[in-house]
Parts: sequence; C-alpha cells; structure tokens
Amino acid sequence: MRGEAPVLALSGGVGGAKLVRGLANVLAEGRLHVACNTGDDFEHLGLLICPDFDTVIYTLSGLVHSGQGWGRADETWQVLGEVAKLGGPSWFRLGDRDIALHLLRRQALDNGMSLEDVATLLCDRLGLTCSVFPASNERVRTLVHSDDGILSFQEYFVRDQCKPKTQAITFDVDTAAKPAVKLNALLTASDNLAAIIFCPSNPYLSLDPILAVPTLRQRISASRCPRIAVSPIIGGSAIKGPTAKIMTELEIPVNPLSYARHLDGLIDALVIDHRDADYVAELEADGLQVFCEHIIMSNEDDKLRLAKTVMRIAEGM
Amino acid sequence: MRGEAPVLALSGGVGGAKLVRGLANVLAEGRLHVACNTGDDFEHLGLLICPDFDTVIYTLSGLVHSGQGWGRADETWQVLGEVAKLGGPSWFRLGDRDIALHLLRRQALDNGMSLEDVATLLCDRLGLTCSVFPASNERVRTLVHSDDGILSFQEYFVRDQCKPKTQAITFDVDTAAKPAVKLNALLTASDNLAAIIFCPSNPYLSLDPILAVPTLRQRISASRCPRIAVSPIIGGSAIKGPTAKIMTELEIPVNPLSYARHLDGLIDALVIDHRDADYVAELEADGLQVFCEHIIMSNEDDKLRLAKTVMRIAEGM
Repeated sequence: MRGEAPVLALSGGVGGAKLVRGLANVLAEGRLHVACNTGDDFEHLGLLICPDFDTVIYTLSGLVHSGQGWGRADETWQVLGEVAKLGGPSWFRLGDRDIALHLLRRQALDNGMSLEDVATLLCDRLGLTCSVFPASNERVRTLVHSDDGILSFQEYFVRDQCKPKTQAITFDVDTAAKPAVKLNALLTASDNLAAIIFCPSNPYLSLDPILAVPTLRQRISASRCPRIAVSPIIGGSAIKGPTAKIMTELEIPVNPLSYARHLDGLIDALVIDHRDADYVAELEADGLQVFCEHIIMSNEDDKLRLAKTVMRIAEGM
Repeated sequence: MRGEAPVLALSGGVGGAKLVRGLANVLAEGRLHVACNTGDDFEHLGLLICPDFDTVIYTLSGLVHSGQGWGRADETWQVLGEVAKLGGPSWFRLGDRDIALHLLRRQALDNGMSLEDVATLLCDRLGLTCSVFPASNERVRTLVHSDDGILSFQEYFVRDQCKPKTQAITFDVDTAAKPAVKLNALLTASDNLAAIIFCPSNPYLSLDPILAVPTLRQRISASRCPRIAVSPIIGGSAIKGPTAKIMTELEIPVNPLSYARHLDGLIDALVIDHRDADYVAELEADGLQVFCEHIIMSNEDDKLRLAKTVMRIAEGM
C-alpha cells in the first residue's frame, strides 16, 4: 500500500529541515527517510562537522535553536571561548552541547563506523523515529570558486559571510563515492516509494551535492514514483541563505522557473508560493504539475500543513 | 658552562609536575627540558588524552586545579554533561576548557604534526618558557594486567579507581618507537647536561614507560652527567596515586630502597625524606649519594626549595 510506502526526502539545512520536521509528524513512524547534503561537511578542530545532517536531527528532536534555525537551544560556549584564548579558530560557532555530539561522532568514526552508521547511532541517541543519513558515506564536498579563490562551503558561508563573489560551484567527489547503503536500498526499490521529496533547499549548494553522488541523478531521473519539489525561492528571493545572491552572481534569474529547470527531468510536481503564481503557465508548459501554496514555514503549524499538502499531492499523482 | 647547561627532567603527572614547576622557576629560561610519560595516553571520545603531559603544562602555566593536582581550575562541565545525556562515556573527567586544548591537539595531529611538535605548539599557546614534550612520538602505553583482565592505565586508574588487583605491568611499545627528537638530541650530548632528574613519579607507571622507549634506558645508563632521583615514596607510602598499592600487590616493599634498586644503574644520587633516614646506610652501600630533605611539596615554596636542593646537588657532583 502506497499509504505505508516509504517516503524519501532530500534535504539541505535550515529550510529543508523544517519540511522534514513536518513530514516526520505527518507520516507514520518509520516511513520517512531523509538523505542529507554532505557538501557542507568539513573537518574543523579535529572534528567532522556535518552542518545539514545536524540541523535536520536537531530540528527533528526539537533541540534546535529555533531563532537561528541551526545549532542548539540553551547552548553554552565555554569550549569555544577557551579555543579562542589558546589562539585556535573560533569563527565556526560550535557550542558546548553541539561539541558533545561531535565528540561522539568522532569517536564512532575512529572506531571504524561508516558515516551513515554514525548517523543511525546519533538518531537513536536523540530518540528519533525516522531515518536520517548522509547521501553518501564517501566524500562529496562543495567547492565555491570565488574571487577570493576556491573555498569550502563553510569558509564561504560562515567565515567569509558569503562576501566573495561566486564564479562557479563544483564538487570534490571521492572516486569511490556511491549512495549510502540506506539510500541505495530505497532507490533500488524506488517504484515502491510513496514519493521522493526535494525539500526547500538551495539547488546549487544543497541539492546539487546530493545529485553529485554518482548514479543518484540517473536513478532519480529513471524513478517512476511521484517526485515533488518545494521551491526554496519566493517572490524573487530565498527565505534564507545565499541562494539568491549566488543565482544573481551566476546570472541566473531568481525565480521558481530557474529552480524547476535546474531540476529538469528529476521532478514531476512543484509547490511554489502564491506570490509566484505568475510562473505557473510557464512551469506547466515545461510539463510540471504546479501547486500554489503558502510555503513559508514560520511555525510548527506551517510545517505540518505544508507536509500534509506535499503528501496529498503525492497521493494524488 | 654547566651553570647554563640544559637540564633534562623525566616526569609523570601530579608529583613530577610539582618538581618541574619548581625547576622552571629556579632555572634560567630555556634550560629546562621535560620528557613526559606517555604510558597513560589514550584515545577517548575521539581525542588523544595525554594526562601526564597535560598535568605538567597546566601546572607550569598555573592553570592547574591546585586542589586535585590535575585538570584546570575554574573548569566547567557542559560538554561532559551532554555526552552523558547522549549515552556517551563520562567516567573520564574532561572539562570544557580542557576539551578546548584537546581539540587543538586533535586538529594539529590531524594536520600531520608529530606529538612532540603539537607539544611545542601547546607550550607556546600557554606561554611556557621551558620545553615539555612526550618521551616518544610513537606509541608506548602502559598495560595493567589485573584480576579484571588487561586494562589501559586510565581504565585501571580512573574508571576502575585502582580497584583491580595488579598482577603485572607491561608496555605496548610501537615497533618503530624511538625517543622524541628533542630527547634524542639532549641524550646525544648527554655529557653536556647539567643533570638528568627523575622527578618524584611512580617508578612502575610513570618512569618505566619512559625507560621502555627503545635505547633510553641504555643511554641514560651510559650518561656521565649527574643523575638524580627524588623519591616518590615517603614513610612507607606514596604521596599520591596507586604506587604503594601496586608495590604491595607486586610484593615489593614500599620504601626508597625498592625504588632506588628499581632504577639501578640509572641514578647517582637520591633525595629521600627525613623520615626515611633509616635507609641511608643501605642506599649508600648500593653506591648512591643520598640526601635527606623535606620532599613533600604542599605549596610553591616547597617546590622552589626542593628544586634548588636538587640543582645544588647536581652542581656539587
């Protein structure tokens, strides 16, 4: 039964995590599987930082700092303060509670666990009932080619505050990279999926690194399950993050049409905001089913409603 | 000139660190070099913990928690509290400020630095003016064979609180282990050393792992500079730690004579406490110069006075 079939969500950080939280609350326990962008991952202070994965699990567990959308609420900063005093790097804001999770990750990786098994361990420790994992266990990292040189995503985004002008985005992909075991299993039986959902995440910085995992693009392209995207662009800008700035610098019009065409062949339906209704005709001409909704998620009700909408669309396809 | 010649101290943790602090204050900047026991080192929570080295540098910098003799004063415990909540191990007490230093160490090791270069970096960050380093860059770890099986030293000492009965102590020595570069250089010119000082540290758990570094025992044995030990045993017990318990379990009498004979051929002079004066005749019969002093270091004055005594003995030899 499709109503019990698994749902695969592809997610970046803050925006994607909000829809993931809605989906987790709408879907029966065990139905939701979330493949996270690893393009932002990086080594820092001897730790492996997985910003998007962590944002998703903190959001799902309710531990997230809701004001900023990432990191933990009730956080303290003793370690980072001392790192700074010792002359170490403090530009990446790792709170004490966040560091605790990173130490567990580091220990598990040192013990030989794969990144996705570590993900399962952390989901379990946070009491999550859905499955969240990296799109790949191997290295797939985003490189921002800018007028300041080639930067890792977090150098660009956090350290340099998106100031450098983007010239191109590429991915540093391990030659052995392949989809995570869980993702591979879901895609092998992709016709049985209730839906593949592209969460509202930056197409260039969050979805593209997932699609850069070898075979993923072709397999999603060939899948016959409902494939639904929620636009991360509303009224000519992005809700959060550098999407709009980067699109402008890459000379791409900031609208849902650019977004949809970027995912050409990968999606069947697109959910856009009411205020972008002007694009419906063109999007439909591209062969997409288009749904105009209120897609800004400012509170838990918004997340739930949008998740229900997305699942209703999937069931109707 | 011997008065400007380098001094090499061999040190374990708390007790050794106290004499090291005295020596650092007595000797001109740059004269003191401290080779630390690595037998207690272990991997924990993805970090490399170097208990004796850290105790020495925290003691030298004045950051140490003087009440307990290890760790930092004004410490907080946010990370460890969260580690425990996440089901991770919290038996080894790593405070937040301490974790900051461990993250810098981990980062530097990940960047390919040797353990002794990391040591130099950390000494520099703490503003130390003497040189403190591990006896070896390679793995030399203490194994406590007990009635609970084979334990790493920290498992035995901290986790199991020295409760298991010791049957034997051995060392897990990397086949490539050799003295640290700095230590090798000092020993290559050992006749130019003003002294080699065996700080008051556990002979089985702190000095033996240093001497287990291949070639060290022979080279110290062959050295013609003054070699002076300060007894860690006073009046039939040890000031701190499991020395006395282990000696009893290994059926070794707990007195300075056992200690001196354990270091047979490696030392020329021994400083013992007044209350062990009864052993002077036997120690002298073994060919040692023996000095009875007040050797408990309860405050900064005690450390300074004992350091001055040791250096005066060295200059008189």
